Amino acid sequence: MAEKQFVKEIADINENFTQWYTDVVLKTQLVDYGPVKGTMVIRPYGYAIWENIQKDMDRRFKENGSKNAYFPLLIPMSFFTKEAEHVEGFAPEVAVVTHAGGAKLEEPLAIRPTSETVIGTMYAKWIQSYRDLPVIMNQWCNVMRWEKTTRPFLRTSEFLWQEGHTVHATEEEAMEETIKMLNVYREFMEETLALPVICGRKTEKEKFAGAVATFGLEAMMLDGKSLQSGTSHYLGQNFSKAFDIKFLDKDSTQKYGYTTSWGTSTRMIGAVIMAHGDQRGLVLPPKIAPIQVIIVPVAAHKGGVIEKAKEIESMLVKAGIRAETDTRDMSPGWKFNEWEMKGVPLRIEIGPRDIENNQAVLVRRDKNEKQFESIDALETLIPELLDIIQKEMLVKSRANRDARIIETDTLDGIINGVDGKFVKAGWCGCRECEDKVKELASATARVMVDEEGIPEKCAICGKPAKHKVIFARAY
Amino acid sequence: MAEKQFVKEIADINENFTQWYTDVVLKTQLVDYGPVKGTMVIRPYGYAIWENIQKDMDRRFKENGSKNAYFPLLIPMSFFTKEAEHVEGFAPEVAVVTHAGGAKLEEPLAIRPTSETVIGTMYAKWIQSYRDLPVIMNQWCNVMRWEKTTRPFLRTSEFLWQEGHTVHATEEEAMEETIKMLNVYREFMEETLALPVICGRKTEKEKFAGAVATFGLEAMMLDGKSLQSGTSHYLGQNFSKAFDIKFLDKDSTQKYGYTTSWGTSTRMIGAVIMAHGDQRGLVLPPKIAPIQVIIVPVAAHKGGVIEKAKEIESMLVKAGIRAETDTRDMSPGWKFNEWEMKGVPLRIEIGPRDIENNQAVLVRRDKNEKQFESIDALETLIPELLDIIQKEMLVKSRANRDARIIETDTLDGIINGVDGKFVKAGWCGCRECEDKVKELASATARVMVDEEGIPEKCAICGKPAKHKVIFARAY
Repeated sequence: MAEKQFVKEIADINENFTQWYTDVVLKTQLVDYGPVKGTMVIRPYGYAIWENIQKDMDRRFKENGSKNAYFPLLIPMSFFTKEAEHVEGFAPEVAVVTHAGGAKLEEPLAIRPTSETVIGTMYAKWIQSYRDLPVIMNQWCNVMRWEKTTRPFLRTSEFLWQEGHTVHATEEEAMEETIKMLNVYREFMEETLALPVICGRKTEKEKFAGAVATFGLEAMMLDGKSLQSGTSHYLGQNFSKAFDIKFLDKDSTQKYGYTTSWGTSTRMIGAVIMAHGDQRGLVLPPKIAPIQVIIVPVAAHKGGVIEKAKEIESMLVKAGIRAETDTRDMSPGWKFNEWEMKGVPLRIEIGPRDIENNQAVLVRRDKNEKQFESIDALETLIPELLDIIQKEMLVKSRANRDARIIETDTLDGIINGVDGKFVKAGWCGCRECEDKVKELASATARVMVDEEGIPEKCAICGKPAKHKVIFARAY
Repeated sequence: MAEKQFVKEIADINENFTQWYTDVVLKTQLVDYGPVKGTMVIRPYGYAIWENIQKDMDRRFKENGSKNAYFPLLIPMSFFTKEAEHVEGFAPEVAVVTHAGGAKLEEPLAIRPTSETVIGTMYAKWIQSYRDLPVIMNQWCNVMRWEKTTRPFLRTSEFLWQEGHTVHATEEEAMEETIKMLNVYREFMEETLALPVICGRKTEKEKFAGAVATFGLEAMMLDGKSLQSGTSHYLGQNFSKAFDIKFLDKDSTQKYGYTTSWGTSTRMIGAVIMAHGDQRGLVLPPKIAPIQVIIVPVAAHKGGVIEKAKEIESMLVKAGIRAETDTRDMSPGWKFNEWEMKGVPLRIEIGPRDIENNQAVLVRRDKNEKQFESIDALETLIPELLDIIQKEMLVKSRANRDARIIETDTLDGIINGVDGKFVKAGWCGCRECEDKVKELASATARVMVDEEGIPEKCAICGKPAKHKVIFARAY
């Protein structure tokens, strides 16, 4: 009864995926709408996921030579105009501070939509010699992009992210860094988010405003649409020339540096929800789950049940597992549903009869099958099981995705294919063909995957193909 | 030679403390000025201190039942007017967004100077029953207060902080939380920053805009001035009534909650600098030092020296110590000066003769004395030594402070005393006397320390005293 009631609160995942998403993020208390249109409040359960993401990524960044810093929120509007493409891309989206301290400002200030301009300005001041290079910094911060249609985590006017900004002496080093960080992201997404991603270069139309080349990581959601989960940009000398980032090289000549930037955001939480969820709600990968194991006492009023549950909890906590016992005055069935909806990877049920038999019931969120295990075995079994869940979620997610990738050599093939699938096709490289796909198939070129081999013909115009592209609808 | 040159770059700490501070924060690369007046860039060396502070504090908050969340940066201006004192205190300082996405906004939005109003709005939505209480959340974020005179870390238009916001069913619980968090701060500042603080209630004049009572933590800087290092506010029902934070109590009646808020910021880094520094530069407590041990090879070109240094480094890193080896192509003397200026708690010098004797030279930053130790002993000795340094810095800092606290029962005593000291005096409790001290002594009432025993007379007007106050000049 309770179960059905609970599930009914969430829209049907197959019939209305959009509503399912909204229901899930609100009802699991990951997030709420902020008072200002288009903003979100990240509630403790959602923020704990972000903290786990941050901790894991931050370690990877530092292992790759990056140091964290913090640059100002407010950027003079004039900074944006220094890089022509950049201002065109971002000016329409910025929020502008015109008054402060009770007076009108001499120059309006933008709330950062991204920080290339202000960080570039500081780098120009700090970098003098080749000895100062490479510079590799990252910041964790909030950014603001005024969007018309917004959805929690996926697209909000303010969001949290990290942005790495690097300067190198040569083109080769900068490109190497761009690709290295793309791979750091890919490994993180696969290992920690259990999210298989396709990496590739973006088309001119889809690249970052001001970049020479943008590389993206595309993940497939359960509805077959793509979600760009991170980007790594090779900026060439565009920003170093605009912001005068110069260094005295070994040969005693002044040279402009080569810069990169790379970013990921709270959007990744949206990707996790839409790649792993099911009708019951969230399914969280153990590595980022705020609670990895929930212990639910059954017939909790009977002597010794709560005590045994707590004993298991503290044993698991000592083993480094995020375990909690739900001692609230609710029925076990109600609790099962709630924790399933909240996506806790593993549930332990323990009642008087289980204690008699020195056993506990384990239920995996990703499989929803019961297994009986000896209480003594839990200490070693649970960490192993969490590892297995983590790995199997990636395998399952990858299989789901691969079954929805098709290839075509016709425009019709793209038009018919993109409804729920990624479509690979040859492309001549011209903007007209790209726009035609957008117009007729409501799909965009996600990334180029030329390394798979370039088809002979452009699927759209029939001319010789220059690239192999993944076309898909995207969030 | 090099040493003198280095030290000369920093202004005399006794003659010009203000310039000394500016020199030190800039030259050690903790911070730089941002492009917008009054803003700062926190550079990697400074940000690493903040990360160490965050990690330590965050653990303490979580142990005290707090969960992290994230609330929006932008707050409708109308929210501020809901609490009369609050708007009066903060409205003159806010930065205002009037345009976004290329259009004028219907309602101007404030960049949060503090988040009581927006968090109160969300709490009103989330809290229904006494079962939902207490609510204890914290956020790590940036805030903005437009200030006329700014100094890095101490007062900047944007700064990083944490703000805790709680709701309770009763006055007693809320007051208990206020004091509990005050003590969490005190313990953190003493144990981790080696900063002795005096806790006490603020006067009406000095309290937070909208609070019933504010409790502050005051630390004495080397020049005898006070730096407010954190505050904990009991807000009573001021905000719950303004924002309609109500709950259905056990007795089935609707009641307003009692709220608290508490905050500390990057200002604490300024306190550490000005409480522990010396003519050579920073002296960092080991617990927050980005580098705890710097290993400087002497005659590094000689075979085996770098290798031995690296060996010691990895031994220390394995023991959980933040150790680094300086292998740059500079003279040892130059390096000694640089790392002293940067406040690294412990230096290890290792040269060919040391290796022959299986020994290393240890130099404590806080004492500047050499000691010779067997290399084999370092693994156990260094962690112990770092602990000792941490503790002795607090003892020294406390002794310095206590020698500069005096008591008086006259206005002249206050006027003559506050130049470089904290002055304790009786106070009748009236605003006129408080203003008189401000006018004649350029000092403010820092906190009330009534628990020490209230003097008979007000030192200013001679009427019966109601409080014992610490008067001091303050940052």
